[in-house]
Amino acid sequence: MINGENLVPAPIRWGMVGGGRGSQIGYIHRSAALRDGVFTLVAGAFDLDAERGRAFGTGIGVAAERCYADYQAMFAAEAQRPDGLQAVSIATPNGTHFAICKAALEAGLHVVCEKPLCFTTAEAEELRELAEAKRRVVGVTYGYAGHQLIEQAREMIAAGELGEIRIVQMQFAHGFHNEAVEAANPATKWRVDPKMAGPSYVLGDIGTHPLYLSEVMLPQLKIRRLMCSRQSFVKSRAPLEDNAFTLMEYDSGAVGCVWSCAVNAGSMHGQKIRVIGSKASLEWWDERPNQMSFEVQGKPLQVLERGMGYLHPHALADDRIGGGHPEGLFEAWSNLYVRYARAMVASDRGDTAALAALHYPGIDAGVEGVRWVEHCVRSADAGAVWVDYA
Amino acid sequence: MINGENLVPAPIRWGMVGGGRGSQIGYIHRSAALRDGVFTLVAGAFDLDAERGRAFGTGIGVAAERCYADYQAMFAAEAQRPDGLQAVSIATPNGTHFAICKAALEAGLHVVCEKPLCFTTAEAEELRELAEAKRRVVGVTYGYAGHQLIEQAREMIAAGELGEIRIVQMQFAHGFHNEAVEAANPATKWRVDPKMAGPSYVLGDIGTHPLYLSEVMLPQLKIRRLMCSRQSFVKSRAPLEDNAFTLMEYDSGAVGCVWSCAVNAGSMHGQKIRVIGSKASLEWWDERPNQMSFEVQGKPLQVLERGMGYLHPHALADDRIGGGHPEGLFEAWSNLYVRYARAMVASDRGDTAALAALHYPGIDAGVEGVRWVEHCVRSADAGAVWVDYA
Amino acid sequence: MINGENLVPAPIRWGMVGGGRGSQIGYIHRSAALRDGVFTLVAGAFDLDAERGRAFGTGIGVAAERCYADYQAMFAAEAQRPDGLQAVSIATPNGTHFAICKAALEAGLHVVCEKPLCFTTAEAEELRELAEAKRRVVGVTYGYAGHQLIEQAREMIAAGELGEIRIVQMQFAHGFHNEAVEAANPATKWRVDPKMAGPSYVLGDIGTHPLYLSEVMLPQLKIRRLMCSRQSFVKSRAPLEDNAFTLMEYDSGAVGCVWSCAVNAGSMHGQKIRVIGSKASLEWWDERPNQMSFEVQGKPLQVLERGMGYLHPHALADDRIGGGHPEGLFEAWSNLYVRYARAMVASDRGDTAALAALHYPGIDAGVEGVRWVEHCVRSADAGAVWVDYA
Amino acid sequence: MINGENLVPAPIRWGMVGGGRGSQIGYIHRSAALRDGVFTLVAGAFDLDAERGRAFGTGIGVAAERCYADYQAMFAAEAQRPDGLQAVSIATPNGTHFAICKAALEAGLHVVCEKPLCFTTAEAEELRELAEAKRRVVGVTYGYAGHQLIEQAREMIAAGELGEIRIVQMQFAHGFHNEAVEAANPATKWRVDPKMAGPSYVLGDIGTHPLYLSEVMLPQLKIRRLMCSRQSFVKSRAPLEDNAFTLMEYDSGAVGCVWSCAVNAGSMHGQKIRVIGSKASLEWWDERPNQMSFEVQGKPLQVLERGMGYLHPHALADDRIGGGHPEGLFEAWSNLYVRYARAMVASDRGDTAALAALHYPGIDAGVEGVRWVEHCVRSADAGAVWVDYA
Ligand SMILES: NC(=O)c1ccc[n+]([C@@H]2O[C@H](COP(=O)([O-])OP(=O)(O)OC[C@H]3O[C@@H](n4cnc5c(N)ncnc54)[C@H](O)[C@@H]3O)[C@@H](O)[C@H]2O)c1
Ligand SMILES: NC(=O)c1ccc[n+]([C@@H]2O[C@H](COP(=O)([O-])OP(=O)(O)OC[C@H]3O[C@@H](n4cnc5c(N)ncnc54)[C@H](O)[C@@H]3O)[C@@H](O)[C@H]2O)c1
Ligand SMILES: NC(=O)c1ccc[n+]([C@@H]2O[C@H](COP(=O)([O-])OP(=O)(O)OC[C@H]3O[C@@H](n4cnc5c(N)ncnc54)[C@H](O)[C@@H]3O)[C@@H](O)[C@H]2O)c1
Ligand SMILES: NC(=O)c1ccc[n+]([C@@H]2O[C@H](COP(=O)([O-])OP(=O)(O)OC[C@H]3O[C@@H](n4cnc5c(N)ncnc54)[C@H](O)[C@@H]3O)[C@@H](O)[C@H]2O)c1
Repeated sequence: MINGENLVPAPIRWGMVGGGRGSQIGYIHRSAALRDGVFTLVAGAFDLDAERGRAFGTGIGVAAERCYADYQAMFAAEAQRPDGLQAVSIATPNGTHFAICKAALEAGLHVVCEKPLCFTTAEAEELRELAEAKRRVVGVTYGYAGHQLIEQAREMIAAGELGEIRIVQMQFAHGFHNEAVEAANPATKWRVDPKMAGPSYVLGDIGTHPLYLSEVMLPQLKIRRLMCSRQSFVKSRAPLEDNAFTLMEYDSGAVGCVWSCAVNAGSMHGQKIRVIGSKASLEWWDERPNQMSFEVQGKPLQVLERGMGYLHPHALADDRIGGGHPEGLFEAWSNLYVRYARAMVASDRGDTAALAALHYPGIDAGVEGVRWVEHCVRSADAGAVWVDYA
Repeated sequence: MINGENLVPAPIRWGMVGGGRGSQIGYIHRSAALRDGVFTLVAGAFDLDAERGRAFGTGIGVAAERCYADYQAMFAAEAQRPDGLQAVSIATPNGTHFAICKAALEAGLHVVCEKPLCFTTAEAEELRELAEAKRRVVGVTYGYAGHQLIEQAREMIAAGELGEIRIVQMQFAHGFHNEAVEAANPATKWRVDPKMAGPSYVLGDIGTHPLYLSEVMLPQLKIRRLMCSRQSFVKSRAPLEDNAFTLMEYDSGAVGCVWSCAVNAGSMHGQKIRVIGSKASLEWWDERPNQMSFEVQGKPLQVLERGMGYLHPHALADDRIGGGHPEGLFEAWSNLYVRYARAMVASDRGDTAALAALHYPGIDAGVEGVRWVEHCVRSADAGAVWVDYA
Repeated sequence: MINGENLVPAPIRWGMVGGGRGSQIGYIHRSAALRDGVFTLVAGAFDLDAERGRAFGTGIGVAAERCYADYQAMFAAEAQRPDGLQAVSIATPNGTHFAICKAALEAGLHVVCEKPLCFTTAEAEELRELAEAKRRVVGVTYGYAGHQLIEQAREMIAAGELGEIRIVQMQFAHGFHNEAVEAANPATKWRVDPKMAGPSYVLGDIGTHPLYLSEVMLPQLKIRRLMCSRQSFVKSRAPLEDNAFTLMEYDSGAVGCVWSCAVNAGSMHGQKIRVIGSKASLEWWDERPNQMSFEVQGKPLQVLERGMGYLHPHALADDRIGGGHPEGLFEAWSNLYVRYARAMVASDRGDTAALAALHYPGIDAGVEGVRWVEHCVRSADAGAVWVDYA
Repeated sequence: MINGENLVPAPIRWGMVGGGRGSQIGYIHRSAALRDGVFTLVAGAFDLDAERGRAFGTGIGVAAERCYADYQAMFAAEAQRPDGLQAVSIATPNGTHFAICKAALEAGLHVVCEKPLCFTTAEAEELRELAEAKRRVVGVTYGYAGHQLIEQAREMIAAGELGEIRIVQMQFAHGFHNEAVEAANPATKWRVDPKMAGPSYVLGDIGTHPLYLSEVMLPQLKIRRLMCSRQSFVKSRAPLEDNAFTLMEYDSGAVGCVWSCAVNAGSMHGQKIRVIGSKASLEWWDERPNQMSFEVQGKPLQVLERGMGYLHPHALADDRIGGGHPEGLFEAWSNLYVRYARAMVASDRGDTAALAALHYPGIDAGVEGVRWVEHCVRSADAGAVWVDYA
């Protein structure tokens, strides 16, 4: 149970780039980072519009002089302060991640970066090398990955409760963009502009989420080859897709499928993962995150509930309230930020054992997401052919 | 509302090949055919084992002398009787369908044949030509297609309530054969033996069911090309697959996906179809057949219930009881058999208008199923490549 | 598995009173009785309107001369025939049950009578004595009681899997009569007319259904006292209620609650029963009859599926198709009619052991339903006070 | 959308009594109060054990000298500080609420008090008078009442979308105490001890939660009389009940039912409310708090989703993230604490208009809960008879 006590020796001094007033994802970064006293918000370059960014920053309690016009100014000024930033979160549009992340690492900061980390595997590898050289933590916010039932799935699979893994069915398929809503909405507009969004829309924007869940649950799986078919049902989005099917063959002989879709009319998020083994299956859905189906062939379906004593200790450790009450995206993000904080502390004191014991979506997850999108796009653009995974 | 009155001028004299004691599918053929007085069971060659077939036939009320040792004997003897067979249902393993169906048509009988109709498109076309020449009805039992909510979906789509169709997600994915259960069970054994099952296992055995639902709901869709990836997770089943993913591109620009699976551990039938249009989606699941989700983007999800006054008249015509009570596979089959009977009567009196007004899974559905499996297998065996659909 | 073979030595010659064209419940009686060859329909007085009754009867295959103008004529004429009626089903409005049932028993017929059996416990006891004297079977059609999962619940409770029983929550709460629909509908009109409906509307019409399920599942429970509060939300229905709550205390210390409602706006049938024991609970709902929740405190919820090998043999015996396909009201009724037929055969040959081994809603269930309604009404009319159960 | 900006002019200086290490409910008070900068935690008497309380307080960032040994010391010392407490939350066992709440009000503090407010209506009225005299806000934490879909229900009912209200079905029925778990668990032990728990267990502990939801949704309903039947299935709990049924008649002619239960084996929380009107029904369940069923008789069931544009503006105002992601108990509590803060600010500046425009569970809700339990107990102890509500 997390009760807020003693999670880190002292709150980490933290700032944000982006995530300003009206942004989609800024609030949850703050809510997650600040919830349990693991971070304290001391600075920010919250907005492209410096004035608005400052007004916003002071409105949430940041000192006016630490609300900066841009990230360059922030990194430079904070480096001069004895109480300067130790870590920064980047919650800006995709096209800016690489440059900001690189600058932050060079400034010696720990980083939490939004997905996708960048646009090419080459860039991603460059960031990884830089992070390693600087011994800095990079977290990537695949948010639901912090949910306790994902931990439960990971442990059950590791314990062999599903048997040999055969099929992984994944989807993130919402309907909110069934029409060209981006015409009227700047926060959506950049998502379908290759310059700012990168080489894909739904593959990178949402498909990588369940993909990462599969990486957490099934760390041993390696993709051998994949094929991807993508469509732009709203024509103006081409070349970026609003629907894609990706089939994958793993080294082990297992197969996987990811359905990424923003035109699934009428559906809410529809992020689901089903892992099918030779003996049993597990299924989890982000809209009912506190329940997970466990189906052993020949036995009644079981519904595992978060917070219950029959779960693995690792799936109980991060509870904030008893079973039967929903813990969802906010708590999952809070869990990730606690792990990020712990990793940063461990890294600062060079405690590699502690670092190794923590698992969270970090730089490797960031690299893998970029690599996967790259392969999907390569396949799709060649006519939905199989491409070897490297 | 069907109340059993006056559905046909007189019950059609009907017999069965196969479907004997212990068979999986025999009972539902009889239950469906006999329920509302549209057929009367007068003869049968129910079993490979003639003795057991006769014992069984008399046990369900067929005269001993009309329980035949084999279908050849039955067709020959019945042709001599003034009160001889008018129609026959074929419920034997796949490998026998072509020969029996051909013999029945040549004997001038109407036929209801189990799926798959046969093994190759060439054979299927031959049966179609023969049926046309003989002016005989051939029904193929894609059973759930008779359910009233399928009719509702067909009408709503035709009326444009979903907008332009973009994506069709289909699956029939059960877990009953996650292990080599066929080792101990003769009724399952033939299903994984290419000689008796044909060129595929799950594609033909179950994948064709939701495929046919899509044909009913979306009669205008034409497959342009497809690709199929198939696996034999239970090794002894190779070359027949126990799992397959099929991706399809339609002429209209829409795309489709069929997941056929017999190793989906812990799942019951899992036959589902979701049709996604530019405005709304419909979703139907065979295990909760009386409810269909209708999701208009930007509106609350709606659950349509069978039997309710807000449904299309065609979706109410076949009700046997008010809404709120389940009507399922048995009623859906009964509906099909009523339509088969009506088609036979119309055909007998040469009423082509009446014939055209009826829709049911007939010879064309049979041919299409075989053609689809053929293409899937061709694709899969070439390494899961795209093949043009012809 | 029921496959229709040899369920009874020969079909029982059977007729109907009521259940004619347009009636709500006639079709399911015939569908159930005739499905597996246990009865054969030879005569009927199907309708108050003799002409319409005859037209209907011949339309479903009854000889014209055996379509009678009224039940008196039918019982008299059939008694003269060597191939005359052996059993009759009564599917007429409530107010006629007592007289018709009495006449049928006096004519030496086995009876299947709709609920409520009659209006007073005194009448009900009279019928019971008559049935015993005549050694005739009387079935009462609490239809869902024939569903296999009800059997499963009965067996699990008997085996102690729930522990000591504490609470029984029951409801039958639909919304179809939220307005005065009876104004326009004769089949509903008599239901709210005390002369034809009896002393209650929803208590007798629907509340007795889940009550009987509790009697099947918990044969040992005896009501000690009860209190009932009833309302007529559609004013014109007074003194008959369209909503009622009944609380019950059982001899064992357990308590029960029945919610009977016809004004539960927007709800379909909502017949549910939840049995709560000291260790676990079972819950069953008539709209998803193939699934039953089994909740052991401290363990994951389990969903039991009809047709699966882990069920009790008694819950598998009446299957007509494998698990995963719905069996619902129609199959449950068919199961009851098979048991009625077996009871009639056993009774005819004086086989009291066979009779004792069969359980089905019979004359005792009929008497109990009437008694319960009587007590509820007495309580409600005295101001919703507790009344001792006798 | 709440993004944390400018909710109150400055964070309110806030402390806690109780809610220390290992307590059930302390964390959510802090998480809710501190989330959006509306309160700042400056002091506490967190624990009966002063040492442990201090260790805990400093562990979550409270200055050591403001971690007090008891609430008397805290109120006295803080009153002397220029930066002293402005508000306090009381999260101690029931039996202490009256004294602590009284002392806090007398010390001139705003109060957030756990339910039940106290043990008798007389005490509750005394607190109400004191709060009014001191012009202090008293909040009572019926936590789920802060959920946005409760607001939606309130608005839909006020707008007449359900028609005239007829029936209110409520329950809070969990299974966690099916055995005498209190034997081993101090935090549960006091709950079944009348000295610390008060005159009831489940009625006050959980039954008052859905009761308050009904007060929010249906502010016009007045109870005319009620009857309550209560049981102690775990014998050692007598005279306190672990199960109770309460029936209520309202002035308007509507009726209500509350099922309060801690022995509902296998169930999680099961807090549900269903409001049935002459035209439609609404149903909400705390375990799936982001979905609410809206059932109009004669139309398909609709599922309303939190966060969607079709909801009432009042039901969208408190969103923290878009629809499709769960917001649950934590967000509901945060919403309440924001409203408490706004009420405190309004009260401090004597802004009665602003106060009147806010609705939240306050002193009146506290009084009503106590009054309801008192009547239930009076009824139950007299043999489950009807008692007039005064
Ligand atoms: N992890 C998730 O679940 C999730 C969900 C939504 C969005 N995202 C990701 O978060 C990122 C932001 O998305 P969003 O939806 O919040 O975008 P948004 O357009 O709503 O907000 C972007 C914010 O960044 C600010 N900004 C832009 N450029 C900036 C710069 N150079 N310096 C400082 N501020 C700048 C904008 O002013 C705005 O406040 C994207 O990469 C997106 O993919 C992740
Ligand atoms: N439409 C559906 O939903 C559905 C479902 C299950 C099976 N099927 C199909 O039904 C067919 C039968 O399947 P099943 O599962 O009932 O098989 P099964 O093996 O259980 O039974 C086959 C029956 O046919 C008899 N038989 C075999 N060869 C015969 C012959 N030459 N002459 C007479 N009788 C013969 C056998 O004795 C046995 O009674 C298959 O084609 C299968 O694909 C369809
Ligand atoms: N078991 C159940 O689940 C269930 C469900 C619905 C109805 N019922 C019961 O079935 C009975 C009939 O209900 P219904 O809804 O079908 O009624 P209905 O009004 O729809 O039909 C009644 C039928 O009985 C005929 N009839 C009336 N009086 C007759 C008489 N004296 N002789 C011959 N025929 C006569 C009418 O012509 C009509 O065909 C009622 O007792 C009702 O409570 C039971
Ligand atoms: N609103 C809700 O949903 C909800 C849920 C659970 C509990 N509650 C209520 O919250 C209250 C506390 O319940 P709990 O389950 O957290 O209890 P608990 O026994 O788990 O914790 C009580 C805490 O109060 C402290 N305490 C006790 N007496 C104290 C005193 N005199 N001074 C200072 N600290 C003291 C204890 O040391 C402990 O830390 C109860 O009134 C209960 O009814 C409400």
